[in-house]
Amino acid sequence: MDSQVVDLSSVSFSTFRWLSEEYYGLNGDHYDVLESPPSPLEFSRILHISRPVLIKGYTIPSLRHWSNKYLSDIMGDRPLSVAVTPNGYADAVTRNPDGKWYFVEPYYQKMTMKSLLSRLGLPSDMSQHTEVFYLQSQDGNLFSSSYFTSGDKESHSELASLRGDVPAEIPWCSEALGRCPDAVNLWIGDRRSVTSIHSDPYENIYHVARGSKTFLLLPPTEGWCLKERLYPHATYQRESENSPLFLKPSLSTTPPVRWPSILHPEQPGSLPDTAHPIIIDVKAGETLYLPAGWWHHVRQSGLSIALNWWYDIEPRGSTWVWLRLLRGVPAEAAGGEEVDE
Amino acid sequence: MDSQVVDLSSVSFSTFRWLSEEYYGLNGDHYDVLESPPSPLEFSRILHISRPVLIKGYTIPSLRHWSNKYLSDIMGDRPLSVAVTPNGYADAVTRNPDGKWYFVEPYYQKMTMKSLLSRLGLPSDMSQHTEVFYLQSQDGNLFSSSYFTSGDKESHSELASLRGDVPAEIPWCSEALGRCPDAVNLWIGDRRSVTSIHSDPYENIYHVARGSKTFLLLPPTEGWCLKERLYPHATYQRESENSPLFLKPSLSTTPPVRWPSILHPEQPGSLPDTAHPIIIDVKAGETLYLPAGWWHHVRQSGLSIALNWWYDIEPRGSTWVWLRLLRGVPAEAAGGEEVDE
Ligand SMILES: O=C(O)CCC(=O)C(=O)O
Ligand SMILES: O=C(O)CCC(=O)C(=O)O
Repeated sequence: MDSQVVDLSSVSFSTFRWLSEEYYGLNGDHYDVLESPPSPLEFSRILHISRPVLIKGYTIPSLRHWSNKYLSDIMGDRPLSVAVTPNGYADAVTRNPDGKWYFVEPYYQKMTMKSLLSRLGLPSDMSQHTEVFYLQSQDGNLFSSSYFTSGDKESHSELASLRGDVPAEIPWCSEALGRCPDAVNLWIGDRRSVTSIHSDPYENIYHVARGSKTFLLLPPTEGWCLKERLYPHATYQRESENSPLFLKPSLSTTPPVRWPSILHPEQPGSLPDTAHPIIIDVKAGETLYLPAGWWHHVRQSGLSIALNWWYDIEPRGSTWVWLRLLRGVPAEAAGGEEVDE
Repeated sequence: MDSQVVDLSSVSFSTFRWLSEEYYGLNGDHYDVLESPPSPLEFSRILHISRPVLIKGYTIPSLRHWSNKYLSDIMGDRPLSVAVTPNGYADAVTRNPDGKWYFVEPYYQKMTMKSLLSRLGLPSDMSQHTEVFYLQSQDGNLFSSSYFTSGDKESHSELASLRGDVPAEIPWCSEALGRCPDAVNLWIGDRRSVTSIHSDPYENIYHVARGSKTFLLLPPTEGWCLKERLYPHATYQRESENSPLFLKPSLSTTPPVRWPSILHPEQPGSLPDTAHPIIIDVKAGETLYLPAGWWHHVRQSGLSIALNWWYDIEPRGSTWVWLRLLRGVPAEAAGGEEVDE
């Protein structure tokens, strides 16, 4: 997740409004659905258009075996770093009991795959856990850029045992871009985990293996509607292994994090009328192309397992400049601490 | 040529400056040179990057026969509409003897191919013509969009006899874009004709058959450096067939034309330091990919014959919005009548 702050205080809200209206006027809230995966050339055109596409029929046969038992057995005793939060919001803006708003990162707890899976997907009245668990380390937990660049195929990744089941790259995407992924991640969670709305500087191929995910998307042109602000950084911590989580503000030397102040874009009335969210359900076996710079809020149902391939943005041409322009919220809008709940 | 005016008076010069500096910082003034034509997939990537590329080795064998004699014979008595100007500037900002600046379109005169060719490429002291002739009708004079859309392959185009020698489309470009050209044009002129700097809303494949062309290019991000203004419209006219050309202002109901006020960007010191022109010589047998929205000023040497294929811009995504943003010069900069010579 990218929180680089662009100093572009000269861009006025009327310019952002004009850009988002023009863009919406031309594109509406349409997204394409493909019944089979694109060819490299077709996907190259899709990358150029840079709008979300739901791709059906791209199956990864080995994922059919990914039952809880199979995953637990293959991972054995290996400890996994699992994000734990009191409320299901890892990497999100949260209010501390003292009334102050923070950007909070989760507590990371080591547990086996078996232990993780036993805590997920239970009806809420059957769960003994008030805390919420989400495997979401998103640091290339399956394959990271060193895998592709160093030629060193040995891995110290916690999830190395699952690599045999996961293609290191998506052929039609790698060929279209002419490069390998920068990171491949595994996500395992349930409906209690929500990913707060943000954007990434990556082309994202997101495949759901089990369960389903609901993406709420906004184009880069509508980022200004999310009212990004700077929030002080915090993490969840525990006093000891069995004590409850608490929010611990980071040292004041930790840079603040720029993040949307709209926390629940999925709730009616929370987004301004100038925003035109696109909601896409991605079911098991389906794949979403989520273009670089698009804002996404992600929910899931049941026990959901997903994989995603992040590819670097095309560095040549105007893509970077365009995305940076659109994140250049006027100075007066940054630096606040309120949220629009 | 596009002269649509965008009302975007809220965009400040500091935003344009920021955009052009960022873009130049990332891209410099580099352009790729290919030794052989790209595959459709390679060209799709090139379209995405949207920077000029000089392509060698894309040969159109039938053009090898295009001697003056061959062209004169095949065209016979058919009259061609040839642009005539006193100074070689067709479609350009020009000062009238009364001291006022106009955007002036050429006088169109009918002549045979043989007659046109006899007037071109002569050393200046051997030319009996003070007027300058340029075949540049650029309305799809070889193939227009109706050729591709109506299925009607009969043509009333003046140049229909040359169609057998010219491919209606460029395979690697049509396949990359998934569509046919919108227009295919023939250009025949000599060093006395100069095309003033402007931009078009087309992807342009420009192939030189004889002679050579020198393109001075600026990216869309540097358009603001050209100080576009609104100029009243005029045309060159004659009283009678043998009388000299004079500039005739159009009726005041003719909309003014937005055009750069920098008339000689090729002359040292005429462009501001914020502009980073790229100069590309395109020789006989070479092909330039000139991306949509790029500003171009075109000179030629000897007797030059060129063909170009204009393809519509991708209408989906953000290309249009980006290009319109970059043409949105602040209101106070439009409407003037001066030039920076
Ligand atoms: O699946 C999720 O919860 C979030 C996915 C996400 O943010 C991403 O792939 O960039
Ligand atoms: O060749 C020329 O003189 C001008 C070419 C041009 O402006 C174009 O192809 O768009």
